[in-house]
Amino acid sequence: MDFALDSRTAALRDEVRAFVRDEAIPAEAVLDAQLAATPDEWRFRPIVDDLRTAARDRGLWNLFLPGERGAGLTNLQYAPLAEETGWSPRLAPVAFNCAAPDTGNMELLAEFGTPAQQAEWLDPLLDARIRSAFCMTEPEVASSDATNIATRIRRDGDHYVVTGRKWWSTGAMNPDARLLIVMGKTDPDAPRHRRQSMILVPRDAPGVRVVRPLTVFGYDDRDHGGHAEIVFDDVRVPAANLLGGEGEGFAIAQARLGPGRIHHCMRAIGMAERALALVGDRARERVAFGVPLAEQGVVREWVAEARVEIEALRLLVLKTAWLMDTVGNRRAMTEIQAIKIAVPRAVQRIVDRAIQVFGAAGLSADQPLAELYAGARALRLADGPDEVHLASLGRAELRHADPRRADPRHADLRHADHAAGE
Amino acid sequence: MDFALDSRTAALRDEVRAFVRDEAIPAEAVLDAQLAATPDEWRFRPIVDDLRTAARDRGLWNLFLPGERGAGLTNLQYAPLAEETGWSPRLAPVAFNCAAPDTGNMELLAEFGTPAQQAEWLDPLLDARIRSAFCMTEPEVASSDATNIATRIRRDGDHYVVTGRKWWSTGAMNPDARLLIVMGKTDPDAPRHRRQSMILVPRDAPGVRVVRPLTVFGYDDRDHGGHAEIVFDDVRVPAANLLGGEGEGFAIAQARLGPGRIHHCMRAIGMAERALALVGDRARERVAFGVPLAEQGVVREWVAEARVEIEALRLLVLKTAWLMDTVGNRRAMTEIQAIKIAVPRAVQRIVDRAIQVFGAAGLSADQPLAELYAGARALRLADGPDEVHLASLGRAELRHADPRRADPRHADLRHADHAAGE
Amino acid sequence: MDFALDSRTAALRDEVRAFVRDEAIPAEAVLDAQLAATPDEWRFRPIVDDLRTAARDRGLWNLFLPGERGAGLTNLQYAPLAEETGWSPRLAPVAFNCAAPDTGNMELLAEFGTPAQQAEWLDPLLDARIRSAFCMTEPEVASSDATNIATRIRRDGDHYVVTGRKWWSTGAMNPDARLLIVMGKTDPDAPRHRRQSMILVPRDAPGVRVVRPLTVFGYDDRDHGGHAEIVFDDVRVPAANLLGGEGEGFAIAQARLGPGRIHHCMRAIGMAERALALVGDRARERVAFGVPLAEQGVVREWVAEARVEIEALRLLVLKTAWLMDTVGNRRAMTEIQAIKIAVPRAVQRIVDRAIQVFGAAGLSADQPLAELYAGARALRLADGPDEVHLASLGRAELRHADPRRADPRHADLRHADHAAGE
Amino acid sequence: MDFALDSRTAALRDEVRAFVRDEAIPAEAVLDAQLAATPDEWRFRPIVDDLRTAARDRGLWNLFLPGERGAGLTNLQYAPLAEETGWSPRLAPVAFNCAAPDTGNMELLAEFGTPAQQAEWLDPLLDARIRSAFCMTEPEVASSDATNIATRIRRDGDHYVVTGRKWWSTGAMNPDARLLIVMGKTDPDAPRHRRQSMILVPRDAPGVRVVRPLTVFGYDDRDHGGHAEIVFDDVRVPAANLLGGEGEGFAIAQARLGPGRIHHCMRAIGMAERALALVGDRARERVAFGVPLAEQGVVREWVAEARVEIEALRLLVLKTAWLMDTVGNRRAMTEIQAIKIAVPRAVQRIVDRAIQVFGAAGLSADQPLAELYAGARALRLADGPDEVHLASLGRAELRHADPRRADPRHADLRHADHAAGE
Repeated sequence: MDFALDSRTAALRDEVRAFVRDEAIPAEAVLDAQLAATPDEWRFRPIVDDLRTAARDRGLWNLFLPGERGAGLTNLQYAPLAEETGWSPRLAPVAFNCAAPDTGNMELLAEFGTPAQQAEWLDPLLDARIRSAFCMTEPEVASSDATNIATRIRRDGDHYVVTGRKWWSTGAMNPDARLLIVMGKTDPDAPRHRRQSMILVPRDAPGVRVVRPLTVFGYDDRDHGGHAEIVFDDVRVPAANLLGGEGEGFAIAQARLGPGRIHHCMRAIGMAERALALVGDRARERVAFGVPLAEQGVVREWVAEARVEIEALRLLVLKTAWLMDTVGNRRAMTEIQAIKIAVPRAVQRIVDRAIQVFGAAGLSADQPLAELYAGARALRLADGPDEVHLASLGRAELRHADPRRADPRHADLRHADHAAGE
Repeated sequence: MDFALDSRTAALRDEVRAFVRDEAIPAEAVLDAQLAATPDEWRFRPIVDDLRTAARDRGLWNLFLPGERGAGLTNLQYAPLAEETGWSPRLAPVAFNCAAPDTGNMELLAEFGTPAQQAEWLDPLLDARIRSAFCMTEPEVASSDATNIATRIRRDGDHYVVTGRKWWSTGAMNPDARLLIVMGKTDPDAPRHRRQSMILVPRDAPGVRVVRPLTVFGYDDRDHGGHAEIVFDDVRVPAANLLGGEGEGFAIAQARLGPGRIHHCMRAIGMAERALALVGDRARERVAFGVPLAEQGVVREWVAEARVEIEALRLLVLKTAWLMDTVGNRRAMTEIQAIKIAVPRAVQRIVDRAIQVFGAAGLSADQPLAELYAGARALRLADGPDEVHLASLGRAELRHADPRRADPRHADLRHADHAAGE
Repeated sequence: MDFALDSRTAALRDEVRAFVRDEAIPAEAVLDAQLAATPDEWRFRPIVDDLRTAARDRGLWNLFLPGERGAGLTNLQYAPLAEETGWSPRLAPVAFNCAAPDTGNMELLAEFGTPAQQAEWLDPLLDARIRSAFCMTEPEVASSDATNIATRIRRDGDHYVVTGRKWWSTGAMNPDARLLIVMGKTDPDAPRHRRQSMILVPRDAPGVRVVRPLTVFGYDDRDHGGHAEIVFDDVRVPAANLLGGEGEGFAIAQARLGPGRIHHCMRAIGMAERALALVGDRARERVAFGVPLAEQGVVREWVAEARVEIEALRLLVLKTAWLMDTVGNRRAMTEIQAIKIAVPRAVQRIVDRAIQVFGAAGLSADQPLAELYAGARALRLADGPDEVHLASLGRAELRHADPRRADPRHADLRHADHAAGE
Repeated sequence: MDFALDSRTAALRDEVRAFVRDEAIPAEAVLDAQLAATPDEWRFRPIVDDLRTAARDRGLWNLFLPGERGAGLTNLQYAPLAEETGWSPRLAPVAFNCAAPDTGNMELLAEFGTPAQQAEWLDPLLDARIRSAFCMTEPEVASSDATNIATRIRRDGDHYVVTGRKWWSTGAMNPDARLLIVMGKTDPDAPRHRRQSMILVPRDAPGVRVVRPLTVFGYDDRDHGGHAEIVFDDVRVPAANLLGGEGEGFAIAQARLGPGRIHHCMRAIGMAERALALVGDRARERVAFGVPLAEQGVVREWVAEARVEIEALRLLVLKTAWLMDTVGNRRAMTEIQAIKIAVPRAVQRIVDRAIQVFGAAGLSADQPLAELYAGARALRLADGPDEVHLASLGRAELRHADPRRADPRHADLRHADHAAGE
């Protein structure tokens, strides 16, 4: 067991950290000004292109993507970089072309796409010439249970016809989001997890109607392309647009979730670190009732509790990344659920307390805290509410007697007992 | 970064686990019977000797002690073994001669003892021929602040004379605890952390008076030697009994704390695991309102939350052990405080919920839960209440601006960024 | 709406308060000494008789009992008195002959007993010449679901024959507990809530076997008669010993619960007040790191939170008492469940923090805190675990649409909208 | 002690409830449409006037104001009405002319205003012909400590000259907010609480500059006049504009706080009730994993916990109102602080869980939950963060030994021990 970063990761981490500190965070005020100047836009603002150019010049590009097309990092190597980008969630991930939902979509195209699909969609995404959206959640059903999905994808000769209504399609208000990856049912009579397929739908295909943007608290996330409700009204696409085979939609969606949660959780930890750094600055400066906040017991206790939680949860995410790299996503399921549950709510609590330290300023746009809060809060619902994952994890845990009481030969990966070299 | 156990540790862990499961846990009922038969004893009961013989025969002995005198394990290697012993805290640690406070006392003697001191006290302790106690806490002062200690150790020719009152001297009711290591002030006028010294006092020295036992939630921990209040009434011991030099008491006490917290915390994690295993058994069997507890949402949620907490906190303790091994106790201070804060209260909460699953049986001696609870609860006060450590950790955290915002060259060990081989 | 106590209650409250402060609390040390002198006894110690004589002389006797046989107070009038007795739970309730389980048993005998049953059992209980126990909970079943009860009560000519196993029969280790009120099944084929009956069983009837005492944490509650496991082995009692009619056991048990919860909850609030008073004393005296605890932010925050919780919960208990008095126990069901859920866990939390303020002394018998804690903790399981009541209350709440959205004529008592005199 | 509403209050409560249910809540969608149609307005939209006309026609007008100018209700009588308006915080309070900050400003003018001030400002406010704002908080200082206030009010002949910067002046973006009540320092050398004064400043006075609006979690609260930052640049107003005397600003501010907290807290309880009603509707309809949410244990437990908290906290607010009515604001200080601390955080938690039940829809504008959440969250900072009040309450609590241990004659109002008519 060894808790040190390897040297490549450590070097990259330092570069990403410096970039975020020196380029992305200072650019936030520029973004605010550009947003104020073009209030009706849903596109990226010019500052994003500036940052992308700078990052790409430094070789900090597509860090999330394993294999030759990307930076070739493992999950364990990418995780510390993702954390750094969480310090500036509006600008840092996109600067490195590492922003959701494009990351997950690129992973799917890289893993399941045909060469033609990759040429048409993956290459421009890797080049940041276009963006994309992922259309999974539906307003009418509890879509944390993926088998509830009602959108239909019907074969009709050389085409598929897509009919349904999706919402929370992040980024899809942005007209540059040329590609929509849509999950729907191809065979309602197949076994529960073989009914769904995924299909590539151009945003400008006839019948695609972007109905309206949704807000998260009062934020419309306009600079990232917002969150759209989209109607698919008998949308015809070539049969070659199917991603993977018919009935493989559920499995493909699962494949997307593992890395996505590592990314989300590590970024969320970076968000908590930034909140904590802001608290530190404020607490050293601000005096109330004659005493700097930094010397007040309650503030100290909060900061300590935040530090402890962050340290423990970061390790859990890193271990999860390691498990995904070494034993695969399926066997890392407990840990993937665990981080999905634990990290967002811890970060929500930490940012809530940070707001309290800032007083009303913390609620406003003068500080990034309220927006960080909204982001962390939304993570507790993205990919299903906490409670679904708690129930699933609890069920699995209660299924069997604890092997340590019965069978010493049990290979409990969870407890890190692999001998190196075994 | 690598989360796998090395092969020696993995093998030892399996052996310890098997021993605890097959020998220690089944022996708990034997211990209860022996306790009932000799209610007035403060000594170990015969079953302890039986277990020690069995453990020593298997080479599972003094596992906690680094170097040649012990098993030669690092903190990181010992930690997973300590966790296993937490499954049976009344019998497993003592079976392997790894029970507090003897462990800490043996560490002190091994590190700071003269050859003569080691021959007289360390060897019989390593052989489990005697026991020992550590006399630090005092009833009159907030002894979480070690500089408050009022016991005096005065030089008088070739002797020191010890005068004071100690309590919570764990194990000291046991007449086999022949050695008391006592902390007191040798020079009240020295700088704050140079006033204290430690001295070895035989329990049968004239002037040592064991006043009374203390209880923890009604438990007297009689089988372990209880918790004693002791008066030192002008107790004379040879000057050669001083441990280390005059004024080194505070530093020696600090040295004792780091490994002690690793041990306590890992055992506490084992306690939580046992509670969770018991909950699993109960929840699968018990039916309420027509539904097994294991299928009830609230129980599932508890179990899931417990699993997540345990997984994260175990990693934090292991990382702390690794830091102690690689950069030393002093630079691991934040993490040592973090585990001291986080682990006991998580375990307290987990065991509390386990009791709730068992109903009133959980409060009784029919299950180990209430006693596990009392043990975890006491850990929140041992070596100073949580709040002292939270305040200290928070103060340190707030002292400086976050280096990630200012200085990329900062070597923040806490975030595991050492490249292997750097 | 009026939050002032009526003048009789205010006067009685002052008298009870003074008695507890001046007689009961100072007698706790006497009780400890008498316990130490007679460690094998399960009976009340002499100090209890002294206190009873003093209380009865002042007319403070059977305050809990409505009607002519008792003090004639309503639930709302008795509640503030019960709170005062919670300051010294080992001595104050028993001093006023207001200690569970005798109180509930006396209520049952007063309400459902025949004149003969009252002459034989109620009169000596009102006179404190005997004690009693209530035998409801069984080890084999989840007895929070009363319909699970397995003990059989079979008619056999002029007798009933009782067969079964009970535990947590509080007080029953005391040989003075001459009367056992036993719940069992008379007709397993009747509708679910008509199967049970209650029967009066003399503790010395042939076939009654008090098997063993149970402990709560490490406490055996020896001075109160402990908590017994009892086997009923074909115990024959005259048919006239049935309390109420056959099949009325469940209804009788329900009748017992309402007032019992008021009493328990108000006493628990008194326990919290005492813990808070102790914290105040300690915090004003104790200095840590150069600052009195009373001036440390974290201690202040705890104390403030405790004060807020206590104030809110006291009002909820008082309102519940008022509802029971004005609309009856059945219509006060939501509030009765609410206080059962909310009060014990708040008191547990408050006492836990009080322990933390005292350090290890708080765990020991030098302070009443650890024992208060065990008492509050046990309340979360008495009469069914919190979770059963939460589920029931939540189910009721979710059953119907909120009437305020639909029907203005709804008479929602819960929201205190009765006009006086309507 | 009596928990029933008097008949006038009960009747008014029913009328207000019906109005909110039948008029205000259905009008929320109308408001949204009017907001979408006039996105750049900071004024009330036409629907507000419609509702006001309807409410005034029913005699539901200025309910908050005691005395002849208002409805003449006590705090205890108004509180249940305020709760009802919390069901629709955007429309109900304003419909009854009971919306902050006008309510507090009208109270000040009614209590401390000269006849001329009342004629000029109070009458049009009571008639809802104008609005007003309260300018207290400053960006540069911790204004929870009112003595920090830096804005200067200097006498200059027959005028005062106001210089300073304020923010979080709620409503002040609305050009109809003709009156600004400004707190500032008149005498920096006076004793701490005699330095401040309040002065009436017309929003159109030369030198008043409304700099910008602030947001709360992305919401600009545009329909209510938002939250403004305002610079006062040597603003001259006649000396007759001083409210009360010089040096009375702190005392006047305190007078404003008590009723304001009753109003805020009762409205917040209404917000929680609405959230709970929405949860009920959703939980009965929504099916996840084959089971309606209303039958899932975790949802039931949340709902039960919310119900218990709401019931207890409502009583605490009502008792606080009663104390203010019977013994005055000063002696009700502990309770006023208690509700300020306890209610907003409970409501925040309840609404957070309601969002979780709704999934991502709960974050969006399709449900009122996210906006209710932002409102409850902001209350934890309005008039000073929780922590300030916790510290103050804790300090007061720790100042003296508990009188119940020492002095039976102590008149502890807090524990409701006044006999009626004593």
